[in-house]
Amino acid sequence: MDLAKRSINNPILRPKDINPSIEGMHIECLLNPGVFQFEGKTFLLLRVAERPLQKEGVCTVPVFNERGEIEILQFKNDDPGLDLSDPRVINYKGQDYLTTLSHLRLVCSDDGVDFYEPEGFPLLTGDGDQESYGIEDCRVTQVEGTYYLTYTAVSPTGVAVGLRTTNDWISFKNHGLIFSAHNKDCTFFEEKINGNFVALHRPSSPELGGNYIWVAKSPDGIHWGEHRCIAQTRKGMWDSARIGAGAAPVLTDKGWLEIYHGADENHRYCLGALLLDRNAPYKVIARSEEPIMEPIMQYEKYGFFGNVIFTNGHLVDGDEITVYYGASDEVICMAKLSIQEILESLKI
Amino acid sequence: MDLAKRSINNPILRPKDINPSIEGMHIECLLNPGVFQFEGKTFLLLRVAERPLQKEGVCTVPVFNERGEIEILQFKNDDPGLDLSDPRVINYKGQDYLTTLSHLRLVCSDDGVDFYEPEGFPLLTGDGDQESYGIEDCRVTQVEGTYYLTYTAVSPTGVAVGLRTTNDWISFKNHGLIFSAHNKDCTFFEEKINGNFVALHRPSSPELGGNYIWVAKSPDGIHWGEHRCIAQTRKGMWDSARIGAGAAPVLTDKGWLEIYHGADENHRYCLGALLLDRNAPYKVIARSEEPIMEPIMQYEKYGFFGNVIFTNGHLVDGDEITVYYGASDEVICMAKLSIQEILESLKI
Repeated sequence: MDLAKRSINNPILRPKDINPSIEGMHIECLLNPGVFQFEGKTFLLLRVAERPLQKEGVCTVPVFNERGEIEILQFKNDDPGLDLSDPRVINYKGQDYLTTLSHLRLVCSDDGVDFYEPEGFPLLTGDGDQESYGIEDCRVTQVEGTYYLTYTAVSPTGVAVGLRTTNDWISFKNHGLIFSAHNKDCTFFEEKINGNFVALHRPSSPELGGNYIWVAKSPDGIHWGEHRCIAQTRKGMWDSARIGAGAAPVLTDKGWLEIYHGADENHRYCLGALLLDRNAPYKVIARSEEPIMEPIMQYEKYGFFGNVIFTNGHLVDGDEITVYYGASDEVICMAKLSIQEILESLKI
Repeated sequence: MDLAKRSINNPILRPKDINPSIEGMHIECLLNPGVFQFEGKTFLLLRVAERPLQKEGVCTVPVFNERGEIEILQFKNDDPGLDLSDPRVINYKGQDYLTTLSHLRLVCSDDGVDFYEPEGFPLLTGDGDQESYGIEDCRVTQVEGTYYLTYTAVSPTGVAVGLRTTNDWISFKNHGLIFSAHNKDCTFFEEKINGNFVALHRPSSPELGGNYIWVAKSPDGIHWGEHRCIAQTRKGMWDSARIGAGAAPVLTDKGWLEIYHGADENHRYCLGALLLDRNAPYKVIARSEEPIMEPIMQYEKYGFFGNVIFTNGHLVDGDEITVYYGASDEVICMAKLSIQEILESLKI
């Protein structure tokens, strides 16, 4: 079952459509945008994964330095301290490095289909030693007028959730890590519940437990507690290996509708839905037995990492959800879903 | 190097010294007590790990039910859905269960050496589905008159940090999970810093990162943020595989002195020290190159799980720290350390 009506313009953005952040870098992938409206336009906050142009005989690794600038480390390929056995991660003398470095970049559109880079807005890079390996997969949620940016902050000490806020997309406040390692896939709810901010997040457990979706509460958006696991992976199903929240839940007359991603043991990423109680969102009312969207198109099945549909941004207009998503970890696409059809598929 | 003066009465408590919580259970181990003073006495909050008396042909597994009572599940040994290959964890049809169940129990003493079970105090059991596999290794920290109990909450959804508070040890308030899975080894500081509660905790990461010590801040003790990793494991050293905070840091004239545990790849657990900046405790001033205490006595080298010294409770009197510790994951011991000697060993 696939409930999505894909844009005929897909992919709407490819790596070649934008320029590297600095000379000497090559854009490997565009991934998983946060989505919001600002000054009458639709904005995507893209994750841009870059790699240094490779040189013969040396292995180059990009990191953000203390000023948030890209710095390129070089290791000689014949250095016995170097381990190149994993294409995503390089190990040098016991320290892991990522082969690509992600920053976040704004593009905007008048019609939600044709996007361009607006002038005068900064790109967002890793800020400090807890983001030296990049920032990724940012959810953008507007709560009481302020934009809350929750993103994956990567560093040698782990993968955690960072928070920045802005009102004008020019100046940003960095509130540090709101969830410690290992955690990602965090989105705020658009409304407070009983006076508290609410968020979904995805800690990972190396022992008991797994890659499950949790909910937490906060009086100020910066300090979080009252954690509860609300959804686990399901053995033998499409979401058997890992699940994680997408963008902010959508308030419907049946409760909060959350579009989440699930992957199986073959790393095939599909989308499904969770319906959460309006006042007690740790209560799951219903959950998709089958995906509501799965990789079926060429651009979803083949690419940098094939068979992946991943969303963390959408716009809602009445019954219609316009989902922006990363396909095959390489290009940006869009599709429309009907809230009513998703709710019907949940058989409540 | 071992700076500890052990009690000649060690072990001061063994499993046979106290009674199982209910008939049909057997106490397998006493572990890792929280320590505090109350009404002029020294109290230990023991972790008591129990196992159901085994019956022929069946495998029994203890869990806490919704009322916090022990419930014993039975699986037939010849059930093909049962996997008994790991002595600590049983798997039945894809679900993991622990072979032992831990609750927390108070014992008290007039002299700090001879302990007995006081009357009129409840034992603490798992409360709700996030603690159904037990509660473990509780740190007790008094902040502004209230006792904060931070403990490992275990359930099928993971290993996380729970918080309860009390003023009288009769009634307790459960504040839920303050750190989501995978997390343990959490202690509060005894003083607020710049108006905030401060805690050390130990998230674990299945990918980048590892079993490292982090610090976090909270305006209310219940909601936490501003996480920072402050100490990593050190390759080739005694704390190469995992580290975790012990009891509350001790304020010295050089900064906060934290006694932590470190284990190597052979699961040998020793104690070391971290010295943290008084006003910015995410800054590490010094760290033990060698353990300040390591398993050398018979009762530390041999037992339920040998070569383990683990502390999460102590009393401070001037220069003297009386450390209560679990030895070999089976018995409770005590030793004295000098703050001055520890600081000297840090060569600052």
